[in-house]
Amino acid sequence: MKFATLKDGSLDGRLLVVSRDLQRALAVPHIAPSLLDALQRWPAVQGALQAAYDTLSAGPAPADSFAFDPVACAAPLPRSPQWLDGSAFLNHGRLMEQAFGTPPIPHFDTVPVMYQGASDDFLGPHDDVPLPNPADGIDFEGEFGVVTGPVPMGVSPEAALGCIRLLVQINDWSLRALGPHEMKTGFGFLQAKPSTAFAPVAVTPDELGSAWREGRVQLRLQVQWNGERFGEPHGGEMGFHFGQLIAHAARTRRLTAGCIVGSGTVSNAARSAGSACIAERRVIEKIDLGDIRTGFMQYGDRVRMQAVFEDGRPGPFGVIDQRVVAAPAAG
Amino acid sequence: MKFATLKDGSLDGRLLVVSRDLQRALAVPHIAPSLLDALQRWPAVQGALQAAYDTLSAGPAPADSFAFDPVACAAPLPRSPQWLDGSAFLNHGRLMEQAFGTPPIPHFDTVPVMYQGASDDFLGPHDDVPLPNPADGIDFEGEFGVVTGPVPMGVSPEAALGCIRLLVQINDWSLRALGPHEMKTGFGFLQAKPSTAFAPVAVTPDELGSAWREGRVQLRLQVQWNGERFGEPHGGEMGFHFGQLIAHAARTRRLTAGCIVGSGTVSNAARSAGSACIAERRVIEKIDLGDIRTGFMQYGDRVRMQAVFEDGRPGPFGVIDQRVVAAPAAG
Repeated sequence: MKFATLKDGSLDGRLLVVSRDLQRALAVPHIAPSLLDALQRWPAVQGALQAAYDTLSAGPAPADSFAFDPVACAAPLPRSPQWLDGSAFLNHGRLMEQAFGTPPIPHFDTVPVMYQGASDDFLGPHDDVPLPNPADGIDFEGEFGVVTGPVPMGVSPEAALGCIRLLVQINDWSLRALGPHEMKTGFGFLQAKPSTAFAPVAVTPDELGSAWREGRVQLRLQVQWNGERFGEPHGGEMGFHFGQLIAHAARTRRLTAGCIVGSGTVSNAARSAGSACIAERRVIEKIDLGDIRTGFMQYGDRVRMQAVFEDGRPGPFGVIDQRVVAAPAAG
Repeated sequence: MKFATLKDGSLDGRLLVVSRDLQRALAVPHIAPSLLDALQRWPAVQGALQAAYDTLSAGPAPADSFAFDPVACAAPLPRSPQWLDGSAFLNHGRLMEQAFGTPPIPHFDTVPVMYQGASDDFLGPHDDVPLPNPADGIDFEGEFGVVTGPVPMGVSPEAALGCIRLLVQINDWSLRALGPHEMKTGFGFLQAKPSTAFAPVAVTPDELGSAWREGRVQLRLQVQWNGERFGEPHGGEMGFHFGQLIAHAARTRRLTAGCIVGSGTVSNAARSAGSACIAERRVIEKIDLGDIRTGFMQYGDRVRMQAVFEDGRPGPFGVIDQRVVAAPAAG
């Protein structure tokens, strides 16, 4: 199944079922008003949602369906109970340690690292990104993520894979000038992580076919900055699978339905894949070329992200395409 | 005004207006079904809530009021958009650095440190605390906190004081064996911070009279562990006031109505005040006595916390009284 959320002025938005080809959409308030509500009552609504999806995808288009417009969409979950972001691409983590000059993270290969992000105010796929200061080192981070059902405290990595309800594509906005200080405090990222953005469509894992494999999203994430190719790293190189990340998050807490667990920046060891964030390109420049040549984003800059299958077909999540703007002055 | 939340099986619970003397309560579904809803529509409901509170507190008791039972209460906000916990008692932070043997936090006296906690699954004041392993170093942390209205990105500390809607009393459960590793990763606390608990009553700042002063809760926090006195540090020694903490949190994000910002463990420089968490007592033992004599909590242990005015009268938040239990095995 494919889902999106129409902006309607409410905190959770209006659930849309989206056709397999991403052309048509259908509101289903008689089944669930919002995606969060559907996730909270998943066993009760899953069958009806599947039937609506099958009908919409098979054609002819139901009379109450309409053209799917990603620009009118919020994040699939405009707010979520928790947003827990790992750093599971070990290549990225190792490069970033070099970038920040921080000591090696202990047990980095065997214990996931993860921070808790704000989950009450996500950005939609085409929303502008208001930020207070270009000197903060504005950066994008292309990621994949999963949306969970209820997860008990102490779940095993294998059982956690069974708690995955949906897959999502993420742009984890980051402010690189603020990150190193927050890492040094030991309290973790806060100001360095403003509102996170999501591609319009959340999908059940079966939509990926064999590209959902080994608990990983086996797609390339194509990233463009101001219309130029930036990278297309592959999601299969995650050092931990999503079941391991969920189990890490749930070690001392339960997760309620709708929690989102992220992969961290998609990153490949092969230099030819490019990068999914500017910070990584900068440290590669320093290592390979001897000096940093790329600056961070400025107001007016755009970033575009789209997942693609290995044969080049577009992935199921739709497109993130955002512009950085100056935040309005506080009143 | 004083508010509490009755457990009713829903995610946000049922809003109760509580009388000034904490003896009577009144549900007000015609005004707002939940405290979160009231906070989201505060300008529209504030007057009606004040009228209900005044009537309930003046007596005679309205026919639909009932005896206030804190044991039936959830946290005032069973879930909240964000839970951002500072470490604003500098005495505590300095002692903890000694405890963990970590390098000094840079700019600790001038820039608040703060972590983002889980905010989807708070514990009520008398809820058992299910945890997976006593070897994790189970500890309580007595704190004060504020609940905000909408806060714009970039708010000043002074303007942030005007965004405070409610004051709360907090037990920020902590797992000390897990904290040092998570601090070293730079990603901050996650497993080390299981579900946080709250005293039953949230109050508007005017309820404290002159004990809400300089952006600080000027009450002592009496803490008992298994019925024995543990400490009663005073809330006035915060190194940053709550407006500064809110402004720090909102530097690169807006806060939506209902966000909670915590003080961190209440802590005083005077040894006679005792402590509001075990970790602090342990490091004081090490410093003053040469060795650590106090262990962490075991299953079955209880902690009780109550704020009191300087003249010894009970504070307005009610009592936290919780027992640590073994978490059920994951299914």
